Amino acid sequence: MNHTTPAATLGVVGGGQLGRMMGEAAGPLGVELVVSDPTPDCPAAPVVREQIVGDFDDYDAIRELAERVDVLTFEIELADPDEMQRVSEETDTPVHPDPDTLRTIQDKLVQNRALADAGIPVPEFRQVDDAEDLLAAGEELGWPLMCKARKGGYDGRGNMPAEGPEAAEEVLDALGGPALAEEMVDFERELAVMGVKGAEEVRAYPVTETIHEEEILRETASPARTDPETRERAREVAFEVLETLDGRGVYGIELFEVDGEILVNEIAPRPHNSGHWTIEGARTSQFEQHVRAVLGWPLGSAERRGPSVTTNLLGDVDEPESATLSGTDSVLESPKASLHWYGKREVRPLRKMGHVTLVDDEAMDCSALLEETRELRDGLTFE
Amino acid sequence: MNHTTPAATLGVVGGGQLGRMMGEAAGPLGVELVVSDPTPDCPAAPVVREQIVGDFDDYDAIRELAERVDVLTFEIELADPDEMQRVSEETDTPVHPDPDTLRTIQDKLVQNRALADAGIPVPEFRQVDDAEDLLAAGEELGWPLMCKARKGGYDGRGNMPAEGPEAAEEVLDALGGPALAEEMVDFERELAVMGVKGAEEVRAYPVTETIHEEEILRETASPARTDPETRERAREVAFEVLETLDGRGVYGIELFEVDGEILVNEIAPRPHNSGHWTIEGARTSQFEQHVRAVLGWPLGSAERRGPSVTTNLLGDVDEPESATLSGTDSVLESPKASLHWYGKREVRPLRKMGHVTLVDDEAMDCSALLEETRELRDGLTFE
Repeated sequence: MNHTTPAATLGVVGGGQLGRMMGEAAGPLGVELVVSDPTPDCPAAPVVREQIVGDFDDYDAIRELAERVDVLTFEIELADPDEMQRVSEETDTPVHPDPDTLRTIQDKLVQNRALADAGIPVPEFRQVDDAEDLLAAGEELGWPLMCKARKGGYDGRGNMPAEGPEAAEEVLDALGGPALAEEMVDFERELAVMGVKGAEEVRAYPVTETIHEEEILRETASPARTDPETRERAREVAFEVLETLDGRGVYGIELFEVDGEILVNEIAPRPHNSGHWTIEGARTSQFEQHVRAVLGWPLGSAERRGPSVTTNLLGDVDEPESATLSGTDSVLESPKASLHWYGKREVRPLRKMGHVTLVDDEAMDCSALLEETRELRDGLTFE
Repeated sequence: MNHTTPAATLGVVGGGQLGRMMGEAAGPLGVELVVSDPTPDCPAAPVVREQIVGDFDDYDAIRELAERVDVLTFEIELADPDEMQRVSEETDTPVHPDPDTLRTIQDKLVQNRALADAGIPVPEFRQVDDAEDLLAAGEELGWPLMCKARKGGYDGRGNMPAEGPEAAEEVLDALGGPALAEEMVDFERELAVMGVKGAEEVRAYPVTETIHEEEILRETASPARTDPETRERAREVAFEVLETLDGRGVYGIELFEVDGEILVNEIAPRPHNSGHWTIEGARTSQFEQHVRAVLGWPLGSAERRGPSVTTNLLGDVDEPESATLSGTDSVLESPKASLHWYGKREVRPLRKMGHVTLVDDEAMDCSALLEETRELRDGLTFE
């Protein structure tokens, strides 16, 4: 293949932190990014060629984006698959992953059915259109249940447990629309595998442990602190999942480890928080990998450099305010740590403002590194 | 310290590949870059907040830059120290490194005298204002001599050997102004140490071997293929050099190894080609290090991850033409290799268009890695 200037121009629907980190990864390759995002001066704006201001389903913005670029992709599930497909056909601009894959993933019920139909292990689930359905699901699967809005949820938003029949109405009101109910999985731990589908091959990163609190990802540890057989099984399942997905790109595959078995929880058709450690911890970051994949370039090595732990920097405030994170010198001084600041002006409760990754290529596992990461993080606050 | 958005805004005089790589390093830290450069859409433009179009000595451009940013720096020796100092005083914007350091370095005679006065070993040299001076220098130091234009030279430009007295007029004409002549050093190899002066400390990266051809850097190998004592001595001399320099930032210190002794060849008051390997090969790249240093932030670890070799991708064309580099898939496919494409539209003979770095943390030294790098590079061509 050839490199010209620019090597390629990539259009990204969405310009949040994922778009920003995609831009940071694209620069060295000579790839220019144009993003579209509804927020003027979105996080990606300062590091990319240009931002087009427009909603994720704004035809005009997506059309303008497509006319500027060689390939279209997206960094948020709220990107509109219909508009992207329409624009793609009108302008003859490929879009990856396939809008059909995004449609499947956008509806968590359709996603679960597609996985189950392909013989991939998922938690037991039921369609829930109203309280009656939820009560029936509780009868069959037992209480509590994990209820999920079929659409609009991502990164833990739109998920809510229902403790018993008395909570049915309240949970469905909160989710605000068609939902599904899953058996509450009593997992040992949550795992994630970042996978990538290129033009000619499929690769997966080593298995990562994800640590959530209140449905929000707090930390990741790679390698996951489980046995090698379970890690191998998680990768097997991830490759099975990747086979069911159409279109090039990086996918985040979230898993439950239950009694040594693996169940698929959710899929993200984009770089994912559970893969941020790959920026420093792997030979090729998930963001560079996504850029390579959607452009049809050769994939990079998904090998890990060494045990890697990432902690999110979440807004620890009660009300939205202008963002000031104190204590960052301790992160900058740590030889193992790398700070990532997403460039958001306002901090809100639990908003993802940045992350810190520690890599220790002399460690055997993540145990001590996780403690070290938590100590560093606990020295940081927005208050 | 605190992180807000932006974490800081840094103004860079010059927006070539060094400015581009500085921008790529600044993004994750939350630091925004504004660059000034005479070439519209300069290499840095697609990855930074904004480019101001203006010459390196254009007062208005530098003034506009200073008004936009917290700290001023530069990525090219052609930046005008007088205008930067004037603007710095007018707008109360710090500039690093100190314009005085740049003034000293801009005049190679003054640079050599400053080093010699500080007791730092340099090749024997003489001031050469005309052919008579050059002939006298040849009598004293012996032929051939290395002649250097006092001003305007960098990256090997402005250097020319004079084989004997008969070449004196021709060489001085070619250099086109006041010069100096140095004894031709019969070195075993050329070395470089990237050093960094922060607000409170000084650090240096491991010693790198630099391989030149026709005065242009072709490859670097780190660690340098010499004995540990020589490497230690090179670092000692580098720290002595750093003591003589004023102002925070990264410095490239080029050295000769002669009979186990170290002589200082030249200093660059900025990130340098001999430190590009640090992007993948060290815990903190020279570009991130420069950003941290000039902002007065804590420095990062300068430790090497593993043996690292970089090859420049130079224009192998006879005439300027639109740039198309073929064969890049082999680089993208190599698990050890990272491609850096500078985003220049036109290739010219020997123009620096990009570079490739290979890191092998399982290797003991650079020997095999250098061969592997050359093989990869030899598969790339602009023709």
